[in-house]
Amino acid sequence: MPKPERHVFVCLQNRPEGHPRPACGQKNCTAVAEEFFFNLQQSQLFDKVQVTTTGCLGPCSEGPSVLVYPEGVMYGRVRKEDVATIFEEHLVNGKPVERLLMSREFWD
Amino acid sequence: MPKPERHVFVCLQNRPEGHPRPACGQKNCTAVAEEFFFNLQQSQLFDKVQVTTTGCLGPCSEGPSVLVYPEGVMYGRVRKEDVATIFEEHLVNGKPVERLLMSREFWD
Repeated sequence: MPKPERHVFVCLQNRPEGHPRPACGQKNCTAVAEEFFFNLQQSQLFDKVQVTTTGCLGPCSEGPSVLVYPEGVMYGRVRKEDVATIFEEHLVNGKPVERLLMSREFWD
Repeated sequence: MPKPERHVFVCLQNRPEGHPRPACGQKNCTAVAEEFFFNLQQSQLFDKVQVTTTGCLGPCSEGPSVLVYPEGVMYGRVRKEDVATIFEEHLVNGKPVERLLMSREFWD
């Protein structure tokens, strides 16, 4: 198994209703993760890109959170509709998608 | 929230008994993850190190799997007893622990 060129981590953290801290799980993160897996399957770029789901990545109020290494680029408020753009522009072509970056207040 | 200098990802993937693919969840990965969180808490290095649990990281037969970015260094067969060494030598001091590296057959 080769080490991927880019590894995307998608938060799937959930919290019970009424919990004082929000969670990506309340904001459709599962659809975001599924869309990354779908894009990977469609592209067949298994040697280049890896997709992994995670527990809490930290900036819960700004989720769904998506983190790309080795750059350490975090995206916030990611919608299913944004995934193909992140996949193509950043994961495949190496150019982070500026308009979807997490606010520097939360990840800098 | 600052971007950490090093971000360690600990696989917590489980699979039902009898599943043809092994899983880190059958190999005490929860204790490994808890030990990373314990080391982080003890060190108070929250600005420098981040610990995140994950779904499957890939090399299931060699788990528990632990992955460190931005280097993209993967450790295999990690035991709770190994965590303090990885934490101190690699996450804090930046020197990967050679003897615990995942075999290059599985991550290269």
